[in-house]
Amino acid sequence: MLPSLAVSLIYGQGDAMAFVYAILLTALVGVFPGFLIKPLRMDLNAKDGMVVAGLCWILLSFFGALPGVFSGAIPSIVDSFFEAVSGFTTTGSTILTEIESLPRGILFWRSFTHWVGGMGVLVFTVALLPKLSGRMAHLARAESPGPTFSKLLPRMSDTAKLLYALYFALSLLQFICLLLAGMNVYDALIHTFGTAGTGGFSNYNASVAAFNSPLIEWIIAIFMMLFGVNFAMYFNLLRRDYHSILHSEELWTYLALILLATMGFTFSILPQYGNFMTALRYGFFQTASLMSTTGFATADFNLWPIFAQGIVVVLTFIGACAGSTAGGFKISRIVLLAKSAYREVLHTLQPRKVAVVRFEGKPVQENTLLQLGVYLFIYVVILLAGFLLLCLESPDVPTAFTAALTCISNVGPGLNAVGPVENFAFYSAPAKLLLSFLMLAGRLEFYPILILFFTSTWRKN
Amino acid sequence: MLPSLAVSLIYGQGDAMAFVYAILLTALVGVFPGFLIKPLRMDLNAKDGMVVAGLCWILLSFFGALPGVFSGAIPSIVDSFFEAVSGFTTTGSTILTEIESLPRGILFWRSFTHWVGGMGVLVFTVALLPKLSGRMAHLARAESPGPTFSKLLPRMSDTAKLLYALYFALSLLQFICLLLAGMNVYDALIHTFGTAGTGGFSNYNASVAAFNSPLIEWIIAIFMMLFGVNFAMYFNLLRRDYHSILHSEELWTYLALILLATMGFTFSILPQYGNFMTALRYGFFQTASLMSTTGFATADFNLWPIFAQGIVVVLTFIGACAGSTAGGFKISRIVLLAKSAYREVLHTLQPRKVAVVRFEGKPVQENTLLQLGVYLFIYVVILLAGFLLLCLESPDVPTAFTAALTCISNVGPGLNAVGPVENFAFYSAPAKLLLSFLMLAGRLEFYPILILFFTSTWRKN
Repeated sequence: MLPSLAVSLIYGQGDAMAFVYAILLTALVGVFPGFLIKPLRMDLNAKDGMVVAGLCWILLSFFGALPGVFSGAIPSIVDSFFEAVSGFTTTGSTILTEIESLPRGILFWRSFTHWVGGMGVLVFTVALLPKLSGRMAHLARAESPGPTFSKLLPRMSDTAKLLYALYFALSLLQFICLLLAGMNVYDALIHTFGTAGTGGFSNYNASVAAFNSPLIEWIIAIFMMLFGVNFAMYFNLLRRDYHSILHSEELWTYLALILLATMGFTFSILPQYGNFMTALRYGFFQTASLMSTTGFATADFNLWPIFAQGIVVVLTFIGACAGSTAGGFKISRIVLLAKSAYREVLHTLQPRKVAVVRFEGKPVQENTLLQLGVYLFIYVVILLAGFLLLCLESPDVPTAFTAALTCISNVGPGLNAVGPVENFAFYSAPAKLLLSFLMLAGRLEFYPILILFFTSTWRKN
Repeated sequence: MLPSLAVSLIYGQGDAMAFVYAILLTALVGVFPGFLIKPLRMDLNAKDGMVVAGLCWILLSFFGALPGVFSGAIPSIVDSFFEAVSGFTTTGSTILTEIESLPRGILFWRSFTHWVGGMGVLVFTVALLPKLSGRMAHLARAESPGPTFSKLLPRMSDTAKLLYALYFALSLLQFICLLLAGMNVYDALIHTFGTAGTGGFSNYNASVAAFNSPLIEWIIAIFMMLFGVNFAMYFNLLRRDYHSILHSEELWTYLALILLATMGFTFSILPQYGNFMTALRYGFFQTASLMSTTGFATADFNLWPIFAQGIVVVLTFIGACAGSTAGGFKISRIVLLAKSAYREVLHTLQPRKVAVVRFEGKPVQENTLLQLGVYLFIYVVILLAGFLLLCLESPDVPTAFTAALTCISNVGPGLNAVGPVENFAFYSAPAKLLLSFLMLAGRLEFYPILILFFTSTWRKN
């Protein structure tokens, strides 16, 4: 919260004291007990890692909600908690009906949570606390996005630092591009945070459309796409391992889906905009925004043809590459399940042939494939349960369905009443807590949140 | 088609010759080549069984479409093919805008396809052609609904005969109940066919609501529920194996879900109807209709609250028990995947513990669990692909989504423009063929239809 305090002091809109109180309270609760209470043991097993990850994100969001409440910008604690969860999980759904009148310090904090959340606060912590590195492997496994956490470097802390450096460098590059395109420093920072974390909070009601600049739209669209790529690819680029990049099934599936979806959008909205380049720009921006699970908007797709809205729903489910800041079901899972499905069909034709599924050139264990199917099942069950409960107070079925879907996938907007120019303010406090649960469950890939509900988690070994 | 010819002769509405032509053409194409061409070999391997099942259902639907076309009742061959596919797959979606004016022979045929399709035409064939029994195992495996085809009796032909006898007995029971409730013979036959096959075609535009009789609604609702039960349970009942019934996870999950959904509907629509018993009747009927994937209607749920519409969507996905005439994803798959998910979460807490998933008291192979996840993936991918294509000509997103969902699950109606008092007439011919593909793919549980698209299927061994 310190950078946000600095911003609020610069602009002097009366929100500085809110940060001071929030910082003091967070420090009091977070730091001092550490001096008083000695932990029974310092090593974390798998269960501990999961529980710590789950609880950390909930506590983080609670304390992250304090500046909004203390400043009076978001008086309700549930609303502010929703906004903080949406920030840290890099979802970008908002309960704010009017953004532009809020103090700049608060808006900076809101977007900063995207940037912090993006790479996972816990990987961030691992990079800052190298002395814990060896014992933190379970924590990072619970935290890291995607089905596999490939160790890029032998030591966890070095991997975390490397990822963090790449993240910082790409963010800096985008920040400079946005400045060169004519944005002011504050707007450029806000939109870099939103893009890098694949979050989607803007400081304008009209989101990226507010700039009315095709150049800025292209820059943000390209960076959204780049932040949806597995960061291992950038590492491969640095060490000139072009072979891994050229043969990455995940990367090329991601790019192929972006191409396909962009074509689908462009074809669908061309009659509405009349001009091919305009339709292509809107189509590519929307594709990059949804696939990277960012959720920035340059157009209200509620006004687009039904086919384009169908693409929105499908893209909201898919998500981007594992090992990126994006959410969603993730490309790597889809590729692996598609390969399993292909194998099952072939097995029907040639029952005696035993085939091993390979991914990125390496054989995949049968157990991993089983877990992917189970993951899809959990995804569908939580989506349908969330959808059903949201039906209780949604104005229509697509609103309830896409509200649940966009929160689980950490995208941001949905269709109809939760569309890109709408917001989640109309939901009741329990519904907002449900949506917060969906965002956290989706971001942490279910297990760290689900185990909190098991009694055996809280039993002594 | 012979019983339908008899019906058309009885009522003399001019559709008899259509059946004569259809019977002659079907016989010509179906019977005579068998005398001329000798098959190279008589045994079927797994691949042959799949291909025969897939092609049979397509050909069956094509020839089943002939009476509608020849009589002029459904002049378009694509429309009539859609209606025949919907009949044989026991879906019950219709392209007819006005049903009551059609000749009674045609309407009888339309509903008779439900009854024939219900237990699977091929199991039917196996029961009638016992001399092929030993070689037909692969055929029945491709055809039988559910993840496992438990052999009730050692010989396949005996199992098929037993299932057929149970099916006939239950149908007869319902027919008598409907007669006693005041239905005429013709209406009682039509609605028994629609219930037994879990199809849903009625001879009234208003479906079961046309009778305006709570008693008839309760009878049909209860039989819809009964036809969604695994037929092995009735076999267990006959041989007094009450232990298997009392401990059946599938059966009790099915009944628990029916109870839950009925309560959900009743609670949701109570304010609309004012009377608890009325709301309960509508709620139970709709639950039984959707879970058994029948699709009969007593109310237009498009006019119900959003929460009730949400339940409609979820139930349309779930379906009933394996080994019944119902479609959908099926309870047994959901129970097994839920158990796998529970095991995965527990594994996170106790990584050293190795647990085996059990179903109905028996351990389940890991490979089966993997296949269930893959099956869910195929289900979701085909659903989303169908949804996306239907978006091209649907008036709204829920119409496109529920049209695809209701056809894959073989339910019948969906929401909005494909609601219970609407129909599928507005879709173009290609869209109707797509919907026919979805119905066939869902009914045959994907593999027999999917392999038809693989080049290696058509290559000589």
